[in-house]
Amino acid sequence: MDIQTLRTAHPDHWMRAAAIRTLTLDAVAAANSGHSGMPMGMADVATVLFEKHLKFDPKAPRWADRDRFILSAGHGSMLIYSLLYLTGYADMTLEQIKNFRQWGAITAGHPEYGHVAGVETTTGPLGQGIANSVGFAIAEENLRARWGAKICDHYTYVIAGDGCLMEGVSQEAIALAGKQQLSRLIVMWDNNGITIDGKVSLSDVTDQRARFAASGWNVLHCDGHDPVDIDRALTAAKKSDKPTLIDCKTHIALGHAAQDTSKGHGALTDPAQMKAAKEAYGWTSEPFVIPAAIKAQWEAFGARGAEARAAWDARLAALSPAKQAEFARIFAGDVPAKLPAIIRGVKKAATEAGAKLATRSASEKVLAAVNPILPETIGGSADLTGSNNTKTADLGVFSAEDRKGRYVYYGIREHGMAAAMNGMALHGGVRPYSGTFMCFTDYARPSMRLSALMGIPVVYVMTHDSIGLGEDGPTHQPVEHLAISRATPNTMVFRPADLVETAEAWEIAFSSKKTPSVLALSRQNLPMVRKTHTNTNMVAKGAYVLAEAEGKRQVILMATGSEVEIALKARDLLQAEGIGTRVVSVPSMELFAAQDEAYRRKVLPAGPVRVAIEAGVRQGWDRWLLGERGRDGKADFVGMSSFGASAPMERLYKEFGITAENAVAKVKALL
Amino acid sequence: MDIQTLRTAHPDHWMRAAAIRTLTLDAVAAANSGHSGMPMGMADVATVLFEKHLKFDPKAPRWADRDRFILSAGHGSMLIYSLLYLTGYADMTLEQIKNFRQWGAITAGHPEYGHVAGVETTTGPLGQGIANSVGFAIAEENLRARWGAKICDHYTYVIAGDGCLMEGVSQEAIALAGKQQLSRLIVMWDNNGITIDGKVSLSDVTDQRARFAASGWNVLHCDGHDPVDIDRALTAAKKSDKPTLIDCKTHIALGHAAQDTSKGHGALTDPAQMKAAKEAYGWTSEPFVIPAAIKAQWEAFGARGAEARAAWDARLAALSPAKQAEFARIFAGDVPAKLPAIIRGVKKAATEAGAKLATRSASEKVLAAVNPILPETIGGSADLTGSNNTKTADLGVFSAEDRKGRYVYYGIREHGMAAAMNGMALHGGVRPYSGTFMCFTDYARPSMRLSALMGIPVVYVMTHDSIGLGEDGPTHQPVEHLAISRATPNTMVFRPADLVETAEAWEIAFSSKKTPSVLALSRQNLPMVRKTHTNTNMVAKGAYVLAEAEGKRQVILMATGSEVEIALKARDLLQAEGIGTRVVSVPSMELFAAQDEAYRRKVLPAGPVRVAIEAGVRQGWDRWLLGERGRDGKADFVGMSSFGASAPMERLYKEFGITAENAVAKVKALL
Repeated sequence: MDIQTLRTAHPDHWMRAAAIRTLTLDAVAAANSGHSGMPMGMADVATVLFEKHLKFDPKAPRWADRDRFILSAGHGSMLIYSLLYLTGYADMTLEQIKNFRQWGAITAGHPEYGHVAGVETTTGPLGQGIANSVGFAIAEENLRARWGAKICDHYTYVIAGDGCLMEGVSQEAIALAGKQQLSRLIVMWDNNGITIDGKVSLSDVTDQRARFAASGWNVLHCDGHDPVDIDRALTAAKKSDKPTLIDCKTHIALGHAAQDTSKGHGALTDPAQMKAAKEAYGWTSEPFVIPAAIKAQWEAFGARGAEARAAWDARLAALSPAKQAEFARIFAGDVPAKLPAIIRGVKKAATEAGAKLATRSASEKVLAAVNPILPETIGGSADLTGSNNTKTADLGVFSAEDRKGRYVYYGIREHGMAAAMNGMALHGGVRPYSGTFMCFTDYARPSMRLSALMGIPVVYVMTHDSIGLGEDGPTHQPVEHLAISRATPNTMVFRPADLVETAEAWEIAFSSKKTPSVLALSRQNLPMVRKTHTNTNMVAKGAYVLAEAEGKRQVILMATGSEVEIALKARDLLQAEGIGTRVVSVPSMELFAAQDEAYRRKVLPAGPVRVAIEAGVRQGWDRWLLGERGRDGKADFVGMSSFGASAPMERLYKEFGITAENAVAKVKALL
Repeated sequence: MDIQTLRTAHPDHWMRAAAIRTLTLDAVAAANSGHSGMPMGMADVATVLFEKHLKFDPKAPRWADRDRFILSAGHGSMLIYSLLYLTGYADMTLEQIKNFRQWGAITAGHPEYGHVAGVETTTGPLGQGIANSVGFAIAEENLRARWGAKICDHYTYVIAGDGCLMEGVSQEAIALAGKQQLSRLIVMWDNNGITIDGKVSLSDVTDQRARFAASGWNVLHCDGHDPVDIDRALTAAKKSDKPTLIDCKTHIALGHAAQDTSKGHGALTDPAQMKAAKEAYGWTSEPFVIPAAIKAQWEAFGARGAEARAAWDARLAALSPAKQAEFARIFAGDVPAKLPAIIRGVKKAATEAGAKLATRSASEKVLAAVNPILPETIGGSADLTGSNNTKTADLGVFSAEDRKGRYVYYGIREHGMAAAMNGMALHGGVRPYSGTFMCFTDYARPSMRLSALMGIPVVYVMTHDSIGLGEDGPTHQPVEHLAISRATPNTMVFRPADLVETAEAWEIAFSSKKTPSVLALSRQNLPMVRKTHTNTNMVAKGAYVLAEAEGKRQVILMATGSEVEIALKARDLLQAEGIGTRVVSVPSMELFAAQDEAYRRKVLPAGPVRVAIEAGVRQGWDRWLLGERGRDGKADFVGMSSFGASAPMERLYKEFGITAENAVAKVKALL
């Protein structure tokens, strides 16, 4: 690459882009850690995007109608930090840039949502950003259909690297976006031909343009260092009726000795090489110093959006007060005031009816009651709609023909679905939930972790939550998956026992603002265990006494979900022998752990034998069996210690010993 | 579809295929559960494959040079069960077919490896089979290069459905296969246009042929119900120098009232509709009865391979006794007799040198010593070769140009890598290991679970195993991942503390035949903690006394990996105050749990305060802190209860309180 030619061709642009390149070099050198080459390679594309296309206002970073910019190649975090600093985001100070990757700085190694205004999603785990972007674009289409283009009318721009495109989740995202004709989605591929191990050709020969075209994308290309060509491509992309891939041919670590090499991917900190690169750029300032003239140009780009934002503010203000309040509500993530009453109604009717019901069907009943008053919900399933019971009659189907539809057929794409839900929740104004079989938590894991890390209230409807699913066998029977989600920080795992607990769990999940929820729901029918109606949301306590011991309390049985029925049967057997037995339902360990000591002691007092019953692995239970005043030698567990098997469920429960009789035997052995 | 025309055109073929269709209908009806439509749709393709192409011998189902047949669309399990029964696999009796999906039967809901001769891999979780197949084909190429085509010369055939192709892992597999020009891999796509939720077009518009072609595949198509056309395509596929996709246009549930509908995907059990379908087929036998003439034709296909197998036996027998023994060894998964001595040598040298070393570098040292005597190893990394330290000098790089190469650049494809490793291990004759960052366990999870479920000794080298990786921040810092792998049945999780423990862990991992291993390795340098050489493999005990208390034993500190150093420092501080403190290293909880009670009691006696130190979540530790003679109120944990942060590692350990000082404070609070 002839730097001199680039400099001469577009000298002002060149220096603006050089500001990104040198800030990147300086910050990475100061941290002695990070990734220099990607921001240096994509500086030109990003400059043109922020200069001429991106609708944004650094003074109002949460402006609902801003364009979203997603750095899917999150290791290039100095690209976005540079852009935010240069365009004038208040919290992105030079001090923050200088403290890149240091404790307490908002300039984390990878861009983290919630740390930095202007960072729309946490990226770094590759492929996530591009997969999130599909959710952003779906949310935009849905809100535009519901609120009109005067209120919602923006683009989602993504920078993705070769790594993003190699991750399988990118295929799920691409195919979903192509099917949905998400024309407001524009992906700029940093086609530099380099990965950490060397050239992309070491591991890939894919014709990416052909691959995207195969899934219904508009495909463009440009010279990623020519601002005119970049502008041409972006302009064309915005006019497409399909999602657009722009293949931006770039040079990683442009102008540095490590240019076009895998070394350029990493931290370029050699002082002499840095000096040489800056010289090649014609950059004469001290480290971290951006010449005032250049900074002023950047800040002018930052100021460009103020007018559009003011006009939008005026259009919003022109809506009826009720509409304005509703808009504010959905973007604040507040539930309607009437939600608790609706939930109470479902609970009351359930208690009165007392019918046997699978909790997945219970979930459907709750959704049928709640979806009509929560117009912000967007449901879906990874091709298991009839099994996950996630579709209610009022939702309609989201498609190119019906953007108001609120149900997404995600296809067999659990990972892409989870990532898209993250994108929707991050976009705001919508509240996503979707289903798959609980065992396929595995497929969705990378995005489920990011829901938790970002603190966004996505709801995962995980049905067929144990060997209770029966004949499909061990490939489909979750055993370790409750433990997996419970091990994940900032995740609420609910395993309700009946329709009442299911309604309570949904109320908490839909009211959450900062924590994702996993609803573990049964395939099989379960009896109502909550016989008496209470207004109180008992699931919110995490665990509670469902049935008290008669006579002297010698035993506490704990159980969740489908095994609460078994605990109650075991209690009947024990009480028949005069052994006083309390049953504690534990729909959410996380919420129980969050209760105060006094409440926890009331539920789990010292003394009685404790046996927990759950059709999963024991890991996670010892805290409640042995801790919390429990004792080794006075506690046991009825559950799984191996994978399941293929057979009708009744047989499986018997063969794996998850029975009232086995629980009784274990209790007696400890008394 | 005009059944009559099909029947008339190829009457003998038709009845052979009808045998599959009717067995499927009968078995699903008997089970009242299962998936009828897929076997009914792909019966013609499978019939032609088994009749004319597949090299197999039901009398020798483990014949090393057989073609592999993989049913990636595993829900169609009755297809493979029918084929195995019809061609004469001894253990696939009619009784087994009649007991489809019942307890104790080998005819599980989804095909399970190890249950059934002829089932090469466990499928059902979609996309896994096609991704496994890449590993099968790599193993075949590598063994052919090493042993010659007289000993290894076979194809891998896959039947994949729309669901397999929607799953992201399929893209990783396709791209890897295309890059590696795996011309012995032939995928037959069951292009029936139907998924559970309805038409494929509900969620996908991808031009699959173009997508495969974009990744370097040979793409063919055929009428999936015309035996001549199917044969033509398979014949052509075998001649390609690229992997081949055959787009087989089919009708799901052919000939049934549910044909071409999503209902056809499920269990078709309506008696009248079954009767009508059988009439349309011209099938007059009773349920489960295959007319002798048709069974004889099928058995003739089963007998077709005997000659080739005998010839292969003779070629193998013509090798030198040493070569025959070596071939038997690598297919039995036995390690060379000298492995223990090599490991002891590494341990002795390590103890003598006493140098600080990251355990990822320790792992590289072990591999450098072991790979030369284990020619069956195939290493790799998901584009983190220099970080995972998985490549040793002698391996060479596997590629189209060098099939003897034993290192695979998998690209940024953790899931595809794990699935390919499963395929290699299942193929036999090779022993795969590969690396990524431990946090990306999440991406590989679906295949890691299948390693465990299938009981195959794949080794996952998971480096950067805690917040100790520092600046990359919480997206890259595993916190819950030790708990995740420990929660998974039949999985050995190793977190070695130094080079000696790393060598011991590798010895166990490489000696395993039925259990996958996860090696959690540090990015940061660690001191040697094993100061005295022992021949005994202490990691094999799972946990052991690393440093005994001086004076009265008041405290037991447990730790793993990088935190053993902290435990030893805490012990120094406590001993300096006269508090007798034992340090127990816990490199593998699973192996410790497998020790007898007497040993466990010796290591963890009742009485002392217990504090565990691990830079991960507590889940999993309560068993050792509170159980095993431990006591609530006398135990505590030093570790993580949230996600990490981006900063240099020393700062992170301090901020998150994972320090000797904090461990001491917790101990004192309990004394």
